[in-house]
Amino acid sequence: MADSDPQPRPMIKVPRIPPMTVRRLSTYYRILRTLEALGDSEPLSSERMSHLTGFTAAQVRRDLAYFGSFGKRGVGYDIQELQLSLRSILGIDRQWAIALVGVGNLGMALLSYRGFSSQGFHITSAFDSDATKHGRRFGSIVVRPVEDLPRVAGEENIQMAIVTVPPAEAQRVVDQVVAAGIKGILNFAPTQLQVPKGVWLVRVDLSIEIEYLSYLLTNS
Amino acid sequence: MADSDPQPRPMIKVPRIPPMTVRRLSTYYRILRTLEALGDSEPLSSERMSHLTGFTAAQVRRDLAYFGSFGKRGVGYDIQELQLSLRSILGIDRQWAIALVGVGNLGMALLSYRGFSSQGFHITSAFDSDATKHGRRFGSIVVRPVEDLPRVAGEENIQMAIVTVPPAEAQRVVDQVVAAGIKGILNFAPTQLQVPKGVWLVRVDLSIEIEYLSYLLTNS
Repeated sequence: MADSDPQPRPMIKVPRIPPMTVRRLSTYYRILRTLEALGDSEPLSSERMSHLTGFTAAQVRRDLAYFGSFGKRGVGYDIQELQLSLRSILGIDRQWAIALVGVGNLGMALLSYRGFSSQGFHITSAFDSDATKHGRRFGSIVVRPVEDLPRVAGEENIQMAIVTVPPAEAQRVVDQVVAAGIKGILNFAPTQLQVPKGVWLVRVDLSIEIEYLSYLLTNS
Repeated sequence: MADSDPQPRPMIKVPRIPPMTVRRLSTYYRILRTLEALGDSEPLSSERMSHLTGFTAAQVRRDLAYFGSFGKRGVGYDIQELQLSLRSILGIDRQWAIALVGVGNLGMALLSYRGFSSQGFHITSAFDSDATKHGRRFGSIVVRPVEDLPRVAGEENIQMAIVTVPPAEAQRVVDQVVAAGIKGILNFAPTQLQVPKGVWLVRVDLSIEIEYLSYLLTNS
């Protein structure tokens, strides 16, 4: 939790739940936000959520049941209340300070990716091993040497790192991130990496998404 | 299927299976490929696959049961045979020709993303609405006006499009892609889009992955 977070957060303790349930919660949250933006404030039934998401109503109820008894039988979920709960569960009721390591094309794309900051994910510093990139500016962010990461991570209370370096460098960079005391890593390098217990590594494998598309095209 | 595909493919008809099962199949395939590259040719038990992937052995068996009876009871899966079957099911036993629309930082990153071409996904053309980008070269690819898409899609037998344009332009671009007769779209724009029946749209939402990381950090 960022020191700069001004909001107290409700303590909702949830059991360990399957990764795909968490991803569906993110989807539910997006739908609720959209409905609210459209001025829709009616309680939401699991059937309507099913229609909006494509998941079955039973799946919706099962997913939300992990977090206690939201919603009233026969009435539906309160859009505001469910949104607040989901924000708390997903950890997006606060601001996260993030270091980006690897300022290539993908790194540069993520520095300006609008989907992050609107959810409270702020890339506040950027690092690269290439000295010719040091000092380059992207908005308020200046690219620094990777050796500065431990100091900056402490000073700026960095809680996550996004790793966008070539596969061959990724393990070494992840080791440096871990040594800097950062506990959450989002890895874009197309390679398997090791982290010690107590550190969370989430890998974004873009070719798995495109394989899903080729599966759909092949089997339809 | 590309006209240029030289290999006959086994006809394995599979039922409609859950999206997450397909993504796990991609993971299994990666593990098998790694084992083979390491010279490991012993039959693979579902327990070992469980250990290597983190999914339960029951989950592994259930996923593979969708596709008939791979493996021998008490012996395990033949690494070569299972790989071939997964390649066929996932549609990666052929080459795919892909158009990229939107040559910003993310588009440029994907043009050089190594994880795609190693799986048979080849970006063969690139398009942008910005005239100042037309004619720019990335390897063998020259950026062209979006208006050229229908003609190029036909000439180069394009089967998929990757859309990396700003959210406000995404629906218009997707409509153009659909009008060009392309049936598979991988969308990176952080927005919901509509496509007609018979066209497959897979959205890569990078903030859902980072939310999963914030969930893990928040609830651990």
